Amino acid sequence: MTEQSGALMRAEIAQQPDVLAALLDAENEARAIAARLRARPARFVLLAARGTSDHAALYAKYLIEITLGLPAGLASPSTLTAYDSRPDLRDVLLIAVSQSGGSPDLVESAVRARECGAHVLAVTNAPDSALASVGWHLDVHAGEERAVAATKSYTAEVLALWLLVTAWAGGDSARARAVPAVVRAHLDRQEEIATLAERFRFTDRLVLTGRGYAYPTAREAALKLMETTYLAAHAFSGADLMHGPIAMVSKSHPVLAVVPDGVGGRAMAPVLASLREAGVDLTVVGGPGSRRPGEPGYSLDGPDEDLSPVADIVPLQLLALEMALARGLDPDAPRGLNKVTRTW
Amino acid sequence: MTEQSGALMRAEIAQQPDVLAALLDAENEARAIAARLRARPARFVLLAARGTSDHAALYAKYLIEITLGLPAGLASPSTLTAYDSRPDLRDVLLIAVSQSGGSPDLVESAVRARECGAHVLAVTNAPDSALASVGWHLDVHAGEERAVAATKSYTAEVLALWLLVTAWAGGDSARARAVPAVVRAHLDRQEEIATLAERFRFTDRLVLTGRGYAYPTAREAALKLMETTYLAAHAFSGADLMHGPIAMVSKSHPVLAVVPDGVGGRAMAPVLASLREAGVDLTVVGGPGSRRPGEPGYSLDGPDEDLSPVADIVPLQLLALEMALARGLDPDAPRGLNKVTRTW
Repeated sequence: MTEQSGALMRAEIAQQPDVLAALLDAENEARAIAARLRARPARFVLLAARGTSDHAALYAKYLIEITLGLPAGLASPSTLTAYDSRPDLRDVLLIAVSQSGGSPDLVESAVRARECGAHVLAVTNAPDSALASVGWHLDVHAGEERAVAATKSYTAEVLALWLLVTAWAGGDSARARAVPAVVRAHLDRQEEIATLAERFRFTDRLVLTGRGYAYPTAREAALKLMETTYLAAHAFSGADLMHGPIAMVSKSHPVLAVVPDGVGGRAMAPVLASLREAGVDLTVVGGPGSRRPGEPGYSLDGPDEDLSPVADIVPLQLLALEMALARGLDPDAPRGLNKVTRTW
Repeated sequence: MTEQSGALMRAEIAQQPDVLAALLDAENEARAIAARLRARPARFVLLAARGTSDHAALYAKYLIEITLGLPAGLASPSTLTAYDSRPDLRDVLLIAVSQSGGSPDLVESAVRARECGAHVLAVTNAPDSALASVGWHLDVHAGEERAVAATKSYTAEVLALWLLVTAWAGGDSARARAVPAVVRAHLDRQEEIATLAERFRFTDRLVLTGRGYAYPTAREAALKLMETTYLAAHAFSGADLMHGPIAMVSKSHPVLAVVPDGVGGRAMAPVLASLREAGVDLTVVGGPGSRRPGEPGYSLDGPDEDLSPVADIVPLQLLALEMALARGLDPDAPRGLNKVTRTW
């Protein structure tokens, strides 16, 4: 570890308010794609992605099902590539999400999906990438991302997908204008994050949980922690946690629940009650009312629930960064990782 | 821990050859449902499940995409229930998989899906359950399951789904007749399992990985380990492992790869090579040729890749049982779990 440890990741986390504001200024691009989607209605949406972008895709699945009433599913790229299946995708939209647009299996599955009749939309941070050239392309405009642990490209993907789906549904995007300020407010609360990081200083595992829109946030936070601190971080939806993995948690193995205000947060109430009843060490990152007095945690304050994944991940990105530094690790140099992962 | 610790789980693991043979004898039931599915073709399949059954559903997703060429996705029950979305499901088949047929959120999401136009098929071990009454029903005939950690109901669900999809595709089911004997052969190799359990005696975490049809097996094995040994067991598809979580593994944190012969196993070759190159402690549960000489592991021998999830989970169920007992835990009494999990 050096004085510069984590400098790249910290800088890119700090760029997010500006990145998101610039993306909002470019929302006409999302509107233009949305107009094409409305002109050629899909019956079903498949989402294909890996790693961090897979959590943006999972967010989009919730948003599409809830906002558009379209059934949506996460694709298993290997069925189109390794298994060479030829599904009938004539009324399917495949949305491929990738920071680099460069992972060969993702490019190949997008090409295959197009051959099988799907419309393909790539959502990337790389307009010149192979993936961007397969079909339609939506640029997330995050600027060059150099840290191995993706941060600004994730929030940009999430907001770009929100802008796209909102325009597709014919909705008003004005609400999103509040997001950069909410993110900036998180960046100003470094001391609270450092206190949380101190709490988790010596744990070797952490379970994260959330429901609905907060579930992708829990998964992305777990991935950031795995990448930067090598912690055994698990993420479960609140419902799945009760179906088995709850046996794994105890007073010595903490749980961090992501509970923004809204429907998903309300659906977490029985899960939180069960965890408290079992005496589990619980930390709540959540909206007003989700934390008990004296319980450790971090307060979230907006934006609206459907937009909350753009902002709520930010304190958790900072948590991963601070926990890595506290453990003497350099989050800019995780073991075994390169910026563009090439999987086949 | 008492002399009886794990007796229920062990007994139900041992019943699997008979359970699977009985299910094969009842395959006309799957054929009858398949005839109805062929008469009312779906454009898309949604699968809804929780916990262990979610892994059977994930298996079915691969099988449906590869065998039938139909796009398929795992449903997020909360979008239909908590978020009250009303997707247009008029040409969608919803397959809900559940041992008990009793989880309220699953029943409610099946009812909602039917209201939104979907055909609903419940695959359960409980023909009198609420879920079984929503639409069509396929009984997995596993008999009463008393152990909290589901074993025989899982393999029965997987085989029932294989019989259903094979009949739906107009295929021949004769190949499945070999499965009970393969499972019986695993049950006769307790000593090898005990040796593997000894290897993992002191680890506090384990990463499991597999691709394609083996990925649901890796996920189900991780869940069994979490439920019975409280180990921090993670499962990643081979591709996703390379996109981030690989930073978490090292010489002191072992990886168990499930690599049956076939397409998925071949697609794992670059992942195994990367893990070996990084000096990771690697155990391979796999077909001939997947293990290096002297490398710890367990050899799998058939059945065909599309049927392998029925059999390949059995040594891993036994591994979870033996590891729990070696740690002085009673796998029949996991912390915080009941047989029927009620989530809303």
